[in-house]
Amino acid sequence: MAEYSTLKVDLGDRSYPIYIGQNLLDQADILKKHIPGNSALIVTNEIVAPLYLKKVEALLDGIRFESVILPDGEQYKNLNVLNTIFDALLTHHMDRNTTIIALGGGVVGDMAGFAAASYQRGVHLIQIPTTLLSQVDSSVGGKTGVNHPLGKNMIGAFYQPRAVIADTNTLNTLDDRQLSSGLAEVIKYGLIKNANFFDWIEQNMDALLQREPKALAYAIEVSCQTKADVVAADEKESGQRALLNLGHTFGHAIETGMGYGEWLHGEAVGAGMCMAAKMSALLGWFSNEQVKKTISIMKHAKLPTTAPESMDEKQFLDLMSVDKKVLDGVLRLILLKSIGDAVVTSDYSKQQLAEAIKLAYTD
Amino acid sequence: MAEYSTLKVDLGDRSYPIYIGQNLLDQADILKKHIPGNSALIVTNEIVAPLYLKKVEALLDGIRFESVILPDGEQYKNLNVLNTIFDALLTHHMDRNTTIIALGGGVVGDMAGFAAASYQRGVHLIQIPTTLLSQVDSSVGGKTGVNHPLGKNMIGAFYQPRAVIADTNTLNTLDDRQLSSGLAEVIKYGLIKNANFFDWIEQNMDALLQREPKALAYAIEVSCQTKADVVAADEKESGQRALLNLGHTFGHAIETGMGYGEWLHGEAVGAGMCMAAKMSALLGWFSNEQVKKTISIMKHAKLPTTAPESMDEKQFLDLMSVDKKVLDGVLRLILLKSIGDAVVTSDYSKQQLAEAIKLAYTD
Repeated sequence: MAEYSTLKVDLGDRSYPIYIGQNLLDQADILKKHIPGNSALIVTNEIVAPLYLKKVEALLDGIRFESVILPDGEQYKNLNVLNTIFDALLTHHMDRNTTIIALGGGVVGDMAGFAAASYQRGVHLIQIPTTLLSQVDSSVGGKTGVNHPLGKNMIGAFYQPRAVIADTNTLNTLDDRQLSSGLAEVIKYGLIKNANFFDWIEQNMDALLQREPKALAYAIEVSCQTKADVVAADEKESGQRALLNLGHTFGHAIETGMGYGEWLHGEAVGAGMCMAAKMSALLGWFSNEQVKKTISIMKHAKLPTTAPESMDEKQFLDLMSVDKKVLDGVLRLILLKSIGDAVVTSDYSKQQLAEAIKLAYTD
Repeated sequence: MAEYSTLKVDLGDRSYPIYIGQNLLDQADILKKHIPGNSALIVTNEIVAPLYLKKVEALLDGIRFESVILPDGEQYKNLNVLNTIFDALLTHHMDRNTTIIALGGGVVGDMAGFAAASYQRGVHLIQIPTTLLSQVDSSVGGKTGVNHPLGKNMIGAFYQPRAVIADTNTLNTLDDRQLSSGLAEVIKYGLIKNANFFDWIEQNMDALLQREPKALAYAIEVSCQTKADVVAADEKESGQRALLNLGHTFGHAIETGMGYGEWLHGEAVGAGMCMAAKMSALLGWFSNEQVKKTISIMKHAKLPTTAPESMDEKQFLDLMSVDKKVLDGVLRLILLKSIGDAVVTSDYSKQQLAEAIKLAYTD
């Protein structure tokens, strides 16, 4: 039997539940009660399909369904691959009452989500995230989209799913790099909002790396709850929600600069959080000891903590200047006042940003 | 000086004004008060640019702006051409507070609108429609999108502009076919909602064809008001709003079947409304005299009234079955109870639909 807890993301008439637990993909009723029509399209990728596609298809008894298998990797998160989802929807005559089921990690979720947002101007969406990163981050909050050669996630929509089903069993098939990438986002929730959770992560890092189910479930629950609270308060990211981007402006620059897929998202964000910590110290907001704690927890989680040598400082500045957090020419950064307390700020000089980038190459 | 009236589309915190009148493109204040940031991208096409681009650029004093000129025609309303708008936005470092100004007909409005909906998950949008069709139809109501080879408007978003500016002077440069195409949608508002307006159109058709400014302004106002009322009551087309699609299911089949751009949208919708009238008569809802009046007003407006010979009946059935109004396998049609009274219905048999398609080839 499935053992799970349910969180609610509170967004008025677009509220939805997140189911977190073991053996959820053995329970047809959870999935089926969130499918309003009589058809569905499962969107997955070539890595996840052999592992879980049959399992999910078996839950759809009585529903007309088709499946699309995308190539794996951030480098395929683009308009061309998105179009293959539209091809499938139209070839199989899926109508406006169909449900798209995203089965996979963040890339699958982002693309299937944007397809659901824009096919016939919006069809139903259910997220079944199968990586730690997508369970704690991308399946909560309704951000969907694809990359453009000139910037990450530049084309997309805010679009809420009808349900998120996070089965912790799927984490057993994750490779170690993917697990660490997910831990970067878990650590992020501690850093921005919750010093106690940060301490808990430090103390339980070995259990998390050994994929101890109870530890993972707790980390996912606290992470989703934190994100759900932030999103409920600020769905379209006019204020608070930007805090969730700690480490992301710098991280996106790494992902774009190195070429999508070279660094995993969480790896880039891990290095980005170390850079944010150093810049916060430079501004006198964060102590050197807190910088050390930040770098140390990333290392413990097996995440990179420094910028890639092959990118130079100018490239970072250029790539950061096209970030979505630029407003009327001013880049707002997410920086740290202390562990558990992040702020959105443009209260820094160009020289300080340049100096922080210089410091990002070494611990 | 500009002489104009203002309508309000009432959608809560997404409400916006429609300005209708002469010389509006000589008034900087109207446009500028709806631009919240300090940058803008004008999206137009190769036909409209030589006529009005300089005029609009001249209104943007003090705002950093760039322009994108798209190829003209429905056949370019696709993801590839859409991507050239994203290229421009990113190349020119346009941020989340930028405003996209759609200057042109329905195709420009649909593409610029979808680009605004999805660039950085949503930036500001102002519509400056320059054809009768876009002034009475596509700039009101927030439908945006692009075509897919397998279906028209299959990829898009509901996204509201901050303002619509309909300058009737721009209609003086329209070619006759485009004017008639716009009149099809004007006639549609009479047919679905307002028998008096239908009579007014019949009586003033010659003035409209001669582009008499007062007649055009009145036709645009009543049309926009009708559409605004319907959209305010049903933004996402769960019920009522579907009435606006009278003639469109059949019309879209013609547009797709003939290849985008071969028939103008209003031409296809004109023939589609004649087909809907005949099918309504077949079901006993509409009299033969009303069918004749419908065909006669279309002829008066110089619109086609019959299906193209080069498409066969099976092709119509296939293309209509991928329409967005199909719900769980059932195609809902918009049919007529009388002039001024349309209904959304699936209360017909397959044979009756086939019979109506057969009748569509002759008046």
